[in-house]
Amino acid sequence: NGREDGNESVQENVLSGFKTSSVLSDSAREKNIFIHGKVADQDAVVILEKTPIREDSLAELFSGSTLKLEMKNDIYSTYRLQAPPHLNEIKTTVVCPATEKHIKKYQRKESFLVEETEEDYKNITLPHIVKQSFSVQWVYNILEKKAEAERIVYEDPDPDVGFVLLPDFKWDQKQVDDLYLIAIAHQRDIKSLRDLTSEHVPLLQNIFQKGKEAILQRYNLPASKLRVYLHYQPSYYHLHVHFTKLGYDAPGCGVERAHLIADVIQNLQSNPQYYKTRTLYFPLRADDGLLSKFKEAGRL
Amino acid sequence: NGREDGNESVQENVLSGFKTSSVLSDSAREKNIFIHGKVADQDAVVILEKTPIREDSLAELFSGSTLKLEMKNDIYSTYRLQAPPHLNEIKTTVVCPATEKHIKKYQRKESFLVEETEEDYKNITLPHIVKQSFSVQWVYNILEKKAEAERIVYEDPDPDVGFVLLPDFKWDQKQVDDLYLIAIAHQRDIKSLRDLTSEHVPLLQNIFQKGKEAILQRYNLPASKLRVYLHYQPSYYHLHVHFTKLGYDAPGCGVERAHLIADVIQNLQSNPQYYKTRTLYFPLRADDGLLSKFKEAGRL
Repeated sequence: NGREDGNESVQENVLSGFKTSSVLSDSAREKNIFIHGKVADQDAVVILEKTPIREDSLAELFSGSTLKLEMKNDIYSTYRLQAPPHLNEIKTTVVCPATEKHIKKYQRKESFLVEETEEDYKNITLPHIVKQSFSVQWVYNILEKKAEAERIVYEDPDPDVGFVLLPDFKWDQKQVDDLYLIAIAHQRDIKSLRDLTSEHVPLLQNIFQKGKEAILQRYNLPASKLRVYLHYQPSYYHLHVHFTKLGYDAPGCGVERAHLIADVIQNLQSNPQYYKTRTLYFPLRADDGLLSKFKEAGRL
Repeated sequence: NGREDGNESVQENVLSGFKTSSVLSDSAREKNIFIHGKVADQDAVVILEKTPIREDSLAELFSGSTLKLEMKNDIYSTYRLQAPPHLNEIKTTVVCPATEKHIKKYQRKESFLVEETEEDYKNITLPHIVKQSFSVQWVYNILEKKAEAERIVYEDPDPDVGFVLLPDFKWDQKQVDDLYLIAIAHQRDIKSLRDLTSEHVPLLQNIFQKGKEAILQRYNLPASKLRVYLHYQPSYYHLHVHFTKLGYDAPGCGVERAHLIADVIQNLQSNPQYYKTRTLYFPLRADDGLLSKFKEAGRL
Protein backbone atom coordinates (compact mmCIF):
# COMPACT_ATOMS: atom_id res chain seq x y z
CA ASN A 1 0.00 0.00 0.00
CA GLY A 2 2.78 2.37 0.94
CA ARG A 3 4.55 1.41 -2.31
CA GLU A 4 1.43 2.11 -4.38
CA ASP A 5 1.05 5.55 -2.84
CA GLY A 6 4.68 6.15 -3.65
CA ASN A 7 4.21 5.11 -7.27
CA GLU A 8 1.14 7.24 -7.72
CA SER A 9 2.86 10.31 -6.38
CA VAL A 10 5.83 9.71 -8.70
CA GLN A 11 3.46 9.29 -11.65
CA GLU A 12 1.64 12.52 -10.84
CA ASN A 13 4.80 14.53 -10.72
CA VAL A 14 6.77 13.12 -13.67
CA LEU A 15 7.06 16.66 -15.10
CA SER A 16 7.70 18.51 -11.84
CA GLY A 17 11.44 18.48 -12.48
CA PHE A 18 11.11 19.05 -16.25
CA LYS A 19 13.84 21.36 -17.57
CA THR A 20 12.89 23.28 -20.71
CA SER A 21 15.66 23.43 -23.32
CA SER A 22 13.66 25.25 -25.98
CA VAL A 23 10.15 25.93 -27.27
CA LEU A 24 9.93 24.09 -30.59
CA SER A 25 6.71 25.78 -31.64
CA ASP A 26 3.47 27.12 -30.25
CA SER A 27 0.16 28.44 -31.45
CA ALA A 28 -1.61 31.31 -29.75
CA ARG A 29 -4.69 30.54 -31.82
CA GLU A 30 -4.84 26.86 -30.93
CA LYS A 31 -3.47 27.35 -27.42
CA ASN A 32 -0.77 24.71 -27.65
CA ILE A 33 2.98 24.59 -27.16
CA PHE A 34 5.66 22.02 -28.13
CA ILE A 35 8.64 21.95 -25.78
CA HIS A 36 12.00 20.18 -25.90
CA GLY A 37 13.61 19.45 -22.55
CA LYS A 38 14.84 16.84 -20.09
CA VAL A 39 12.89 14.44 -17.91
CA ALA A 40 15.37 12.90 -15.45
CA ASP A 41 18.34 13.27 -17.85
CA GLN A 42 16.44 11.89 -20.85
CA ASP A 43 15.53 14.01 -23.87
CA ALA A 44 11.79 14.54 -24.10
CA VAL A 45 9.23 16.44 -26.12
CA VAL A 46 6.26 17.71 -24.12
CA ILE A 47 3.12 18.95 -25.87
CA LEU A 48 0.61 21.03 -23.92
CA GLU A 49 -2.76 21.95 -25.38
CA LYS A 50 -5.64 23.61 -23.61
CA THR A 51 -8.92 21.73 -23.88
CA PRO A 52 -12.06 22.96 -25.68
CA ILE A 53 -14.67 24.65 -23.50
CA ARG A 54 -17.51 22.22 -22.84
CA GLU A 55 -21.11 23.37 -22.84
CA ASP A 56 -21.99 20.93 -20.02
CA SER A 57 -19.48 22.56 -17.68
CA LEU A 58 -20.63 26.16 -18.17
CA ALA A 59 -22.94 26.43 -15.13
CA GLU A 60 -20.26 25.14 -12.78
CA LEU A 61 -17.64 27.29 -14.51
CA PHE A 62 -19.64 30.49 -13.98
CA SER A 63 -20.57 29.76 -10.38
CA GLY A 64 -17.20 28.39 -9.26
CA SER A 65 -14.74 30.84 -10.82
CA THR A 66 -13.19 34.15 -9.85
CA LEU A 67 -13.45 37.14 -12.20
CA LYS A 68 -10.88 39.96 -12.44
CA LEU A 69 -12.11 43.04 -14.27
CA GLU A 70 -9.72 44.27 -16.96
CA MET A 71 -11.60 46.88 -18.99
CA LYS A 72 -15.02 48.47 -19.28
CA ASN A 73 -16.28 50.63 -22.20
CA ASP A 74 -19.98 51.23 -22.82
CA ILE A 75 -21.69 47.83 -23.05
CA TYR A 76 -18.39 45.94 -23.35
CA SER A 77 -16.29 44.61 -20.49
CA THR A 78 -13.47 42.11 -20.29
CA TYR A 79 -12.31 39.93 -17.42
CA ARG A 80 -9.70 37.32 -16.57
CA LEU A 81 -11.58 34.28 -15.32
CA GLN A 82 -9.82 31.91 -12.92
CA ALA A 83 -11.53 28.53 -13.02
CA PRO A 84 -11.40 25.50 -10.74
CA PRO A 85 -8.52 23.35 -12.10
CA HIS A 86 -10.67 20.28 -12.83
CA LEU A 87 -12.87 22.37 -15.18
CA ASN A 88 -9.92 23.74 -17.10
CA GLU A 89 -7.48 20.94 -17.83
CA ILE A 90 -4.51 21.00 -20.16
CA LYS A 91 -3.97 17.96 -22.39
CA THR A 92 -0.36 16.87 -21.97
CA THR A 93 1.55 14.50 -24.23
CA VAL A 94 5.04 13.32 -23.36
CA VAL A 95 7.43 11.70 -25.84
CA CYS A 96 10.32 10.24 -23.81
CA PRO A 97 12.98 9.33 -24.66
CA ALA A 98 12.79 11.56 -27.76
CA THR A 99 15.26 11.32 -30.65
CA GLU A 100 16.63 14.12 -32.83
CA LYS A 101 13.95 13.18 -35.39
CA HIS A 102 11.11 13.76 -32.92
CA ILE A 103 12.54 17.11 -31.96
CA LYS A 104 12.87 18.27 -35.60
CA LYS A 105 9.38 17.04 -36.39
CA TYR A 106 7.82 19.45 -33.90
CA GLN A 107 10.09 22.40 -34.64
CA ARG A 108 8.43 25.35 -36.28
CA LYS A 109 10.25 27.40 -38.85
CA GLU A 110 9.67 31.12 -38.52
CA SER A 111 8.49 33.13 -41.54
CA PHE A 112 9.44 36.61 -42.69
CA LEU A 113 7.47 38.91 -44.96
CA VAL A 114 9.52 39.81 -48.04
CA GLU A 115 8.95 42.83 -50.26
CA GLU A 116 9.81 42.02 -53.89
CA THR A 117 9.99 44.88 -56.37
CA GLU A 118 10.13 44.38 -60.13
CA GLU A 119 13.95 44.69 -59.86
CA ASP A 120 14.16 42.25 -56.95
CA TYR A 121 12.33 39.68 -59.06
CA LYS A 122 14.79 40.08 -61.94
CA ASN A 123 17.93 40.25 -59.80
CA ILE A 124 17.15 37.89 -56.92
CA THR A 125 14.09 35.67 -57.35
CA LEU A 126 14.29 34.72 -61.04
CA PRO A 127 18.01 33.76 -60.94
CA HIS A 128 17.29 31.68 -57.81
CA ILE A 129 14.38 29.84 -59.48
CA VAL A 130 16.45 29.19 -62.62
CA LYS A 131 19.50 28.02 -60.68
CA GLN A 132 17.49 25.71 -58.45
CA SER A 133 15.70 24.28 -61.52
CA PHE A 134 13.12 22.66 -59.23
CA SER A 135 11.82 19.56 -60.96
CA VAL A 136 8.18 19.65 -62.00
CA GLN A 137 8.36 16.19 -63.60
CA TRP A 138 5.55 15.07 -61.31
CA VAL A 139 3.36 17.84 -62.80
CA TYR A 140 4.16 16.68 -66.33
CA ASN A 141 3.35 13.10 -65.29
CA ILE A 142 -0.13 14.28 -64.29
CA LEU A 143 -0.65 16.30 -67.48
CA GLU A 144 0.47 13.30 -69.59
CA LYS A 145 -1.63 10.77 -67.58
CA LYS A 146 1.49 8.90 -66.54
CA ALA A 147 0.46 9.33 -62.90
CA GLU A 148 -2.68 10.04 -60.87
CA ALA A 149 -4.86 9.69 -63.98
CA GLU A 150 -7.62 8.06 -61.91
CA ARG A 151 -7.71 11.09 -59.58
CA ILE A 152 -8.58 13.60 -62.30
CA VAL A 153 -11.92 15.29 -61.62
CA TYR A 154 -12.09 17.27 -64.87
CA GLU A 155 -9.92 18.06 -67.87
CA ASP A 156 -9.99 20.61 -70.66
CA PRO A 157 -7.31 19.26 -73.08
CA ASP A 158 -6.84 22.52 -75.02
CA PRO A 159 -3.06 23.25 -75.14
CA ASP A 160 -3.54 27.03 -74.68
CA VAL A 161 -6.40 27.46 -72.22
CA GLY A 162 -6.79 23.85 -71.02
CA PHE A 163 -6.06 22.39 -67.59
CA VAL A 164 -6.40 19.35 -65.36
CA LEU A 165 -8.43 19.58 -62.12
CA LEU A 166 -7.68 17.12 -59.30
CA PRO A 167 -7.90 16.90 -55.51
CA ASP A 168 -5.00 18.29 -53.50
CA PHE A 169 -3.16 15.70 -51.40
CA LYS A 170 -4.19 17.55 -48.22
CA TRP A 171 -7.85 16.71 -48.91
CA ASP A 172 -9.03 13.21 -47.98
CA GLN A 173 -12.21 13.72 -50.07
CA LYS A 174 -14.30 12.30 -47.22
CA GLN A 175 -16.36 15.50 -46.82
CA VAL A 176 -16.73 18.75 -48.75
CA ASP A 177 -16.16 20.87 -45.59
CA ASP A 178 -12.46 21.01 -46.38
CA LEU A 179 -12.67 20.69 -50.17
CA TYR A 180 -9.32 21.43 -51.81
CA LEU A 181 -8.66 21.00 -55.52
CA ILE A 182 -5.87 22.15 -57.81
CA ALA A 183 -6.17 23.16 -61.47
CA ILE A 184 -2.89 22.67 -63.35
CA ALA A 185 -2.52 24.53 -66.68
CA HIS A 186 -1.47 22.56 -69.75
CA GLN A 187 0.73 25.52 -70.79
CA ARG A 188 4.23 24.86 -69.51
CA ASP A 189 5.93 28.25 -69.81
CA ILE A 190 4.18 30.18 -67.02
CA LYS A 191 6.24 29.96 -63.84
CA SER A 192 4.03 32.05 -61.57
CA LEU A 193 1.86 35.14 -61.10
CA ARG A 194 4.89 37.25 -62.14
CA ASP A 195 4.76 35.84 -65.70
CA LEU A 196 1.09 36.65 -66.27
CA THR A 197 0.05 39.35 -68.72
CA SER A 198 -3.24 40.21 -70.40
CA GLU A 199 -2.61 37.47 -72.98
CA HIS A 200 -3.24 34.92 -70.22
CA VAL A 201 -6.67 36.31 -69.30
CA PRO A 202 -8.50 33.73 -71.51
CA LEU A 203 -6.58 30.92 -69.77
CA LEU A 204 -7.43 32.26 -66.30
CA GLN A 205 -11.07 32.84 -67.20
CA ASN A 206 -11.33 29.33 -68.60
CA ILE A 207 -9.84 27.74 -65.47
CA PHE A 208 -12.08 29.87 -63.23
CA GLN A 209 -15.29 29.20 -65.16
CA LYS A 210 -14.87 25.51 -66.02
CA GLY A 211 -13.34 24.72 -62.63
CA LYS A 212 -16.39 26.16 -60.87
CA GLU A 213 -18.75 24.24 -63.19
CA ALA A 214 -16.90 20.95 -62.61
CA ILE A 215 -17.02 21.43 -58.82
CA LEU A 216 -20.75 22.23 -58.92
CA GLN A 217 -21.39 19.11 -60.97
CA ARG A 218 -19.19 16.72 -58.99
CA TYR A 219 -19.53 18.07 -55.43
CA ASN A 220 -22.75 20.09 -55.65
CA LEU A 221 -20.94 23.17 -54.32
CA PRO A 222 -21.85 26.50 -55.99
CA ALA A 223 -19.35 29.24 -56.84
CA SER A 224 -20.52 31.30 -53.84
CA LYS A 225 -18.98 28.64 -51.54
CA LEU A 226 -15.56 28.69 -53.21
CA ARG A 227 -12.32 30.60 -52.68
CA VAL A 228 -10.30 30.45 -55.91
CA TYR A 229 -6.74 31.79 -55.88
CA LEU A 230 -3.09 31.60 -56.85
CA HIS A 231 -0.12 31.52 -54.49
CA TYR A 232 2.85 33.84 -54.69
CA GLN A 233 5.44 32.45 -54.15
CA PRO A 234 3.96 29.18 -55.39
CA SER A 235 5.36 25.92 -54.03
CA TYR A 236 6.25 24.82 -57.60
CA TYR A 237 6.88 26.96 -60.66
CA HIS A 238 4.22 25.73 -63.08
CA LEU A 239 0.96 27.69 -63.20
CA HIS A 240 -1.73 26.21 -60.96
CA VAL A 241 -4.86 27.51 -59.25
CA HIS A 242 -6.27 26.58 -55.83
CA PHE A 243 -9.99 25.88 -55.26
CA THR A 244 -10.91 25.64 -51.56
CA LYS A 245 -14.20 25.78 -49.71
CA LEU A 246 -15.13 29.16 -48.28
CA GLY A 247 -15.20 28.89 -44.49
CA TYR A 248 -12.45 26.27 -44.44
CA ASP A 249 -9.23 27.85 -43.12
CA ALA A 250 -7.05 26.16 -45.71
CA PRO A 251 -3.30 26.53 -45.10
CA GLY A 252 -1.98 29.25 -47.43
CA CYS A 253 -5.27 31.10 -47.91
CA GLY A 254 -4.04 34.15 -45.99
CA VAL A 255 -3.85 37.57 -47.67
CA GLU A 256 -0.02 37.49 -47.42
CA ARG A 257 0.26 34.63 -49.93
CA ALA A 258 -3.04 34.18 -51.80
CA HIS A 259 -4.33 36.20 -54.78
CA LEU A 260 -7.99 35.77 -55.79
CA ILE A 261 -8.14 34.73 -59.45
CA ALA A 262 -11.03 37.19 -59.96
CA ASP A 263 -8.76 40.04 -58.79
CA VAL A 264 -5.88 38.79 -60.95
CA ILE A 265 -8.12 38.79 -64.04
CA GLN A 266 -9.39 42.33 -63.34
CA ASN A 267 -5.89 43.65 -62.64
CA LEU A 268 -4.54 42.22 -65.92
CA GLN A 269 -7.52 43.54 -67.86
CA SER A 270 -6.91 47.10 -66.69
CA ASN A 271 -3.10 46.88 -66.73
CA PRO A 272 -1.48 44.14 -68.86
CA GLN A 273 1.82 44.60 -66.97
CA TYR A 274 0.27 44.63 -63.48
CA TYR A 275 2.11 41.58 -62.14
CA LYS A 276 5.34 42.30 -64.05
CA THR A 277 5.74 45.73 -62.48
CA ARG A 278 4.05 45.59 -59.07
CA THR A 279 5.85 45.22 -55.74
CA LEU A 280 4.61 41.94 -54.31
CA TYR A 281 4.69 40.75 -50.69
CA PHE A 282 4.98 37.16 -49.50
CA PRO A 283 6.22 35.15 -46.50
CA LEU A 284 9.35 33.01 -46.69
CA ARG A 285 10.38 30.47 -44.09
CA ALA A 286 13.69 30.87 -42.28
CA ASP A 287 15.13 27.81 -44.03
CA ASP A 288 14.10 28.91 -47.56
CA GLY A 289 17.10 29.47 -49.84
CA LEU A 290 15.36 32.45 -51.41
CA LEU A 291 15.27 34.21 -48.04
CA SER A 292 19.07 34.00 -47.81
CA LYS A 293 19.29 35.62 -51.25
CA PHE A 294 17.10 38.52 -50.13
CA LYS A 295 19.22 38.89 -46.98
CA GLU A 296 22.48 38.84 -48.96
CA ALA A 297 21.07 41.58 -51.20
CA GLY A 298 20.30 43.69 -48.11
CA ARG A 299 16.56 43.49 -48.82
CA LEU A 300 15.61 42.20 -45.38
CA ASN B 1 -12.54 49.40 3.40
CA GLY B 2 -15.46 47.13 4.05
CA ARG B 3 -17.32 48.86 1.22
CA GLU B 4 -14.37 48.39 -1.10
CA ASP B 5 -14.30 44.70 -0.32
CA GLY B 6 -18.00 44.53 -1.00
CA ASN B 7 -17.64 46.25 -4.38
CA GLU B 8 -14.80 44.03 -5.37
CA SER B 9 -16.71 40.90 -4.48
CA VAL B 10 -19.73 42.06 -6.51
CA GLN B 11 -17.50 42.84 -9.45
CA GLU B 12 -15.82 39.46 -9.22
CA ASN B 13 -19.08 37.55 -9.35
CA VAL B 14 -21.02 39.34 -12.06
CA LEU B 15 -21.34 36.03 -13.96
CA SER B 16 -22.03 33.74 -11.00
CA GLY B 17 -25.75 33.84 -11.67
CA PHE B 18 -25.42 33.79 -15.47
CA LYS B 19 -28.12 31.72 -17.13
CA THR B 20 -27.20 30.24 -20.50
CA SER B 21 -29.94 30.50 -23.13
CA SER B 22 -27.93 29.03 -26.02
CA VAL B 23 -24.45 28.47 -27.35
CA LEU B 24 -24.14 30.77 -30.34
CA SER B 25 -20.96 29.13 -31.63
CA ASP B 26 -17.79 27.48 -30.42
CA SER B 27 -14.48 26.30 -31.74
CA ALA B 28 -12.69 23.21 -30.48
CA ARG B 29 -9.63 24.31 -32.43
CA GLU B 30 -9.48 27.79 -30.91
CA LYS B 31 -10.89 26.82 -27.51
CA ASN B 32 -13.54 29.49 -27.41
CA ILE B 33 -17.29 29.62 -26.94
CA PHE B 34 -19.89 32.35 -27.56
CA ILE B 35 -22.89 32.17 -25.26
CA HIS B 36 -26.21 34.02 -25.17
CA GLY B 37 -27.83 34.31 -21.78
CA LYS B 38 -29.04 36.57 -18.99
CA VAL B 39 -27.08 38.63 -16.48
CA ALA B 40 -29.57 39.83 -13.85
CA ASP B 41 -32.51 39.83 -16.30
CA GLN B 42 -30.57 41.59 -19.04
CA ASP B 43 -29.67 39.91 -22.32
CA ALA B 44 -25.94 39.37 -22.58
CA VAL B 45 -23.40 37.73 -24.82
CA VAL B 46 -20.48 36.13 -22.99
CA ILE B 47 -17.36 35.07 -24.87
CA LEU B 48 -14.92 32.70 -23.20
CA GLU B 49 -11.57 31.93 -24.75
CA LYS B 50 -8.71 30.03 -23.20
CA THR B 51 -5.44 31.94 -23.19
CA PRO B 52 -2.27 30.94 -25.06
CA ILE B 53 0.33 29.00 -23.07
CA ARG B 54 3.15 31.33 -22.05
CA GLU B 55 6.76 30.25 -22.16
CA ASP B 56 7.60 32.30 -19.07
CA SER B 57 5.07 30.38 -16.98
CA LEU B 58 6.25 26.88 -17.93
CA ALA B 59 8.54 26.25 -14.96
CA GLU B 60 5.83 27.20 -12.47
CA LEU B 61 3.24 25.29 -14.51
CA PHE B 62 5.27 22.06 -14.38
CA SER B 63 6.16 22.34 -10.70
CA GLY B 64 2.78 23.55 -9.47
CA SER B 65 0.33 21.33 -11.34
CA THR B 66 -1.20 17.92 -10.81
CA LEU B 67 -0.89 15.28 -13.54
CA LYS B 68 -3.43 12.49 -14.14
CA LEU B 69 -2.14 9.70 -16.35
CA GLU B 70 -4.48 8.79 -19.21
CA MET B 71 -2.51 6.53 -21.53
CA LYS B 72 0.96 5.06 -21.90
CA ASN B 73 2.29 3.29 -25.02
CA ASP B 74 6.01 2.80 -25.68
CA ILE B 75 7.66 6.23 -25.61
CA TYR B 76 4.31 8.08 -25.69
CA SER B 77 2.16 8.98 -22.71
CA THR B 78 -0.71 11.39 -22.21
CA TYR B 79 -1.95 13.14 -19.10
CA ARG B 80 -4.60 15.57 -17.95
CA LEU B 81 -2.78 18.46 -16.30
CA GLN B 82 -4.58 20.51 -13.63
CA ALA B 83 -2.88 23.88 -13.28
CA PRO B 84 -3.04 26.59 -10.62
CA PRO B 85 -5.92 28.88 -11.72
CA HIS B 86 -3.75 32.01 -12.04
CA LEU B 87 -1.54 30.22 -14.61
CA ASN B 88 -4.46 29.09 -16.72
CA GLU B 89 -6.89 31.97 -17.08
CA ILE B 90 -9.85 32.21 -19.43
CA LYS B 91 -10.32 35.50 -21.24
CA THR B 92 -13.89 36.61 -20.74
CA THR B 93 -15.73 39.27 -22.68
CA VAL B 94 -19.21 40.40 -21.67
CA VAL B 95 -21.55 42.39 -23.92
CA CYS B 96 -24.41 43.60 -21.72
CA PRO B 97 -27.06 44.65 -22.42
CA ALA B 98 -26.85 42.87 -25.78
CA THR B 99 -29.32 43.57 -28.57
CA GLU B 100 -30.66 41.16 -31.17
CA LYS B 101 -27.92 42.49 -33.49
CA HIS B 102 -25.13 41.52 -31.07
CA ILE B 103 -26.58 38.07 -30.62
CA LYS B 104 -26.79 37.59 -34.37
CA LYS B 105 -23.26 38.87 -34.81
CA TYR B 106 -21.81 36.04 -32.73
CA GLN B 107 -24.05 33.30 -34.06
CA ARG B 108 -22.27 30.82 -36.28
CA LYS B 109 -23.66 31.08 -39.76
CA GLU B 110 -22.65 29.84 -43.13
CA SER B 111 -20.96 32.33 -45.42
CA PHE B 112 -21.43 33.07 -49.10
CA LEU B 113 -19.01 34.83 -51.40
CA VAL B 114 -20.60 37.95 -52.88
CA GLU B 115 -19.49 39.75 -56.03
CA GLU B 116 -20.00 43.51 -55.69
CA THR B 117 -19.62 45.66 -58.78
CA GLU B 118 -19.40 49.46 -58.69
CA GLU B 119 -23.16 49.55 -59.41
CA ASP B 120 -23.94 46.97 -56.73
CA TYR B 121 -22.16 49.16 -54.20
CA LYS B 122 -24.22 52.22 -55.19
CA ASN B 123 -27.55 50.40 -55.51
CA ILE B 124 -27.35 47.74 -52.80
CA THR B 125 -24.51 48.13 -50.28
CA LEU B 126 -24.38 51.90 -49.72
CA PRO B 127 -28.17 52.31 -49.21
CA HIS B 128 -28.04 49.36 -46.76
CA ILE B 129 -25.17 50.91 -44.74
CA VAL B 130 -26.91 54.30 -44.64
CA LYS B 131 -30.26 52.81 -43.64
CA GLN B 132 -28.77 50.65 -40.88
CA SER B 133 -26.79 53.61 -39.48
CA PHE B 134 -24.71 51.30 -37.27
CA SER B 135 -23.52 53.21 -34.21
CA VAL B 136 -19.78 53.87 -34.00
CA GLN B 137 -20.11 55.80 -30.73
CA TRP B 138 -17.61 53.43 -29.12
CA VAL B 139 -15.08 54.43 -31.81
CA TYR B 140 -15.65 58.12 -31.08
CA ASN B 141 -15.23 57.38 -27.34
CA ILE B 142 -11.78 56.00 -28.10
CA LEU B 143 -10.79 58.88 -30.40
CA GLU B 144 -11.98 61.40 -27.77
CA LYS B 145 -10.31 59.52 -24.85
CA LYS B 146 -13.66 59.00 -23.19
CA ALA B 147 -12.92 55.28 -23.03
CA GLU B 148 -9.95 52.93 -23.26
CA ALA B 149 -7.51 55.88 -23.06
CA GLU B 150 -5.12 53.78 -20.98
CA ARG B 151 -5.05 51.09 -23.68
CA ILE B 152 -3.69 53.39 -26.37
CA VAL B 153 -0.31 52.21 -27.62
CA TYR B 154 0.38 55.15 -29.92
CA GLU B 155 -1.39 58.23 -31.23
CA ASP B 156 -0.80 60.66 -34.03
CA PRO B 157 -3.32 63.43 -33.26
CA ASP B 158 -3.27 65.02 -36.73
CA PRO B 159 -6.92 65.42 -37.88
CA ASP B 160 -6.12 64.46 -41.50
CA VAL B 161 -3.51 61.71 -41.34
CA GLY B 162 -3.60 60.91 -37.61
CA PHE B 163 -4.83 57.78 -35.89
CA VAL B 164 -5.03 55.92 -32.61
CA LEU B 165 -3.33 52.52 -32.28
CA LEU B 166 -4.59 50.11 -29.64
CA PRO B 167 -4.83 46.37 -28.98
CA ASP B 168 -7.77 44.53 -30.46
CA PHE B 169 -10.14 42.96 -27.92
CA LYS B 170 -9.20 39.51 -29.20
CA TRP B 171 -5.61 39.95 -28.00
CA ASP B 172 -4.81 39.51 -24.29
CA GLN B 173 -1.37 41.21 -24.76
CA LYS B 174 0.37 38.50 -22.74
CA GLN B 175 2.56 37.34 -25.68
CA VAL B 176 3.40 38.76 -29.11
CA ASP B 177 2.67 35.43 -30.87
CA ASP B 178 -0.90 36.51 -31.51
CA LEU B 179 -0.29 40.26 -31.60
CA TYR B 180 -3.39 42.06 -32.90
CA LEU B 181 -3.68 45.84 -32.93
CA ILE B 182 -6.09 48.20 -34.63
CA ALA B 183 -5.30 51.65 -36.00
CA ILE B 184 -8.38 53.87 -36.04
CA ALA B 185 -8.23 56.97 -38.26
CA HIS B 186 -9.14 60.33 -36.76
CA GLN B 187 -10.91 61.21 -40.03
CA ARG B 188 -14.59 60.32 -39.62
CA ASP B 189 -15.89 60.42 -43.18
CA ILE B 190 -14.25 57.28 -44.61
CA LYS B 191 -16.64 54.37 -44.31
CA SER B 192 -14.51 51.67 -45.90
CA LEU B 193 -12.09 50.63 -48.65
CA ARG B 194 -14.76 51.71 -51.18
CA ASP B 195 -14.38 55.37 -50.15
CA LEU B 196 -10.61 55.46 -50.60
CA THR B 197 -9.05 57.49 -53.42
CA SER B 198 -5.53 58.71 -54.07
CA GLU B 199 -6.16 61.65 -51.71
CA HIS B 200 -6.08 59.14 -48.83
CA VAL B 201 -2.65 57.75 -49.73
CA PRO B 202 -0.87 60.05 -47.21
CA LEU B 203 -3.23 58.84 -44.47
CA LEU B 204 -2.64 55.18 -45.34
CA GLN B 205 1.12 55.65 -45.61
CA ASN B 206 1.18 57.44 -42.26
CA ILE B 207 -0.78 54.67 -40.52
CA PHE B 208 1.39 51.99 -42.16
CA GLN B 209 4.72 53.69 -41.35
CA LYS B 210 4.03 55.00 -37.85
CA GLY B 211 2.08 51.90 -36.87
CA LYS B 212 5.06 49.71 -37.79
CA GLU B 213 7.43 52.01 -35.88
CA ALA B 214 5.25 52.01 -32.76
CA ILE B 215 5.01 48.21 -32.82
CA LEU B 216 8.78 47.85 -33.23
CA GLN B 217 9.33 50.20 -30.30
CA ARG B 218 6.71 48.75 -27.97
CA TYR B 219 6.80 45.04 -28.87
CA ASN B 220 10.20 44.70 -30.54
CA LEU B 221 8.57 43.19 -33.62
CA PRO B 222 9.97 44.31 -37.00
CA ALA B 223 7.87 45.03 -40.09
CA SER B 224 8.91 41.68 -41.63
CA LYS B 225 6.85 39.93 -38.92
CA LEU B 226 3.66 41.92 -39.55
CA ARG B 227 0.58 41.48 -41.72
CA VAL B 228 -1.10 44.88 -42.15
CA TYR B 229 -4.49 45.01 -43.86
CA LEU B 230 -8.02 46.37 -44.18
CA HIS B 231 -11.21 44.33 -44.19
CA TYR B 232 -13.89 44.57 -46.84
CA GLN B 233 -16.64 44.45 -45.72
CA PRO B 234 -15.39 45.89 -42.43
CA SER B 235 -17.27 45.06 -39.24
CA TYR B 236 -17.84 48.80 -38.60
CA TYR B 237 -17.92 51.65 -41.08
CA HIS B 238 -15.15 53.91 -39.80
CA LEU B 239 -11.72 53.50 -41.40
CA HIS B 240 -9.46 51.17 -39.42
CA VAL B 241 -6.42 49.05 -40.20
CA HIS B 242 -5.48 45.63 -38.74
CA PHE B 243 -1.92 44.83 -37.59
CA THR B 244 -1.42 41.12 -36.84
CA LYS B 245 1.65 38.97 -36.42
CA LEU B 246 2.74 37.04 -39.48
CA GLY B 247 2.38 33.33 -38.76
CA TYR B 248 -0.63 33.91 -36.49
CA ASP B 249 -3.76 32.73 -38.29
CA ALA B 250 -5.80 35.70 -37.16
CA PRO B 251 -9.54 35.41 -37.87
CA GLY B 252 -10.35 37.46 -40.97
CA CYS B 253 -6.87 37.40 -42.50
CA GLY B 254 -8.00 35.25 -45.43
CA VAL B 255 -7.67 36.50 -49.00
CA GLU B 256 -11.47 36.66 -49.34
CA ARG B 257 -11.77 39.50 -46.81
CA ALA B 258 -8.35 41.08 -46.20
CA HIS B 259 -6.55 43.63 -48.37
CA LEU B 260 -2.87 44.33 -47.64
CA ILE B 261 -2.42 48.06 -47.00
CA ALA B 262 0.75 47.98 -49.15
CA ASP B 263 -1.34 46.72 -52.10
CA VAL B 264 -4.08 49.27 -51.40
CA ILE B 265 -1.53 52.10 -51.49
CA GLN B 266 0.01 50.86 -54.76
CA ASN B 267 -3.39 50.37 -56.38
CA LEU B 268 -4.51 53.91 -55.46
CA GLN B 269 -1.22 55.39 -56.64
CA SER B 270 -1.60 53.88 -60.09
CA ASN B 271 -5.37 54.32 -60.30
CA PRO B 272 -7.01 56.91 -58.00
CA GLN B 273 -10.44 55.33 -58.62
CA TYR B 274 -9.29 51.72 -58.14
CA TYR B 275 -11.57 50.93 -55.18
CA LYS B 276 -14.45 53.05 -56.45
CA THR B 277 -14.67 51.15 -59.74
CA ARG B 278 -13.39 47.66 -59.07
CA THR B 279 -15.57 44.60 -58.57
CA LEU B 280 -14.84 43.42 -55.02
CA TYR B 281 -15.44 39.99 -53.50
CA PHE B 282 -16.22 39.26 -49.87
CA PRO B 283 -18.00 36.69 -47.72
CA LEU B 284 -21.32 37.49 -46.08
CA ARG B 285 -22.92 35.38 -43.39
CA ALA B 286 -26.32 33.83 -44.00
CA ASP B 287 -27.97 36.14 -41.46
CA ASP B 288 -26.39 39.35 -42.74
CA GLY B 289 -29.04 41.81 -43.88
CA LEU B 290 -26.78 42.80 -46.76
CA LEU B 291 -26.88 39.25 -48.12
CA SER B 292 -30.69 39.41 -48.33
CA LYS B 293 -30.36 42.63 -50.32
CA PHE B 294 -27.99 40.96 -52.79
CA LYS B 295 -30.40 38.02 -53.08
CA GLU B 296 -33.41 40.30 -53.64
CA ALA B 297 -31.45 42.05 -56.41
CA GLY B 298 -30.81 38.69 -58.04
CA ARG B 299 -27.06 39.03 -57.47
CA LEU B 300 -26.62 35.65 -55.74
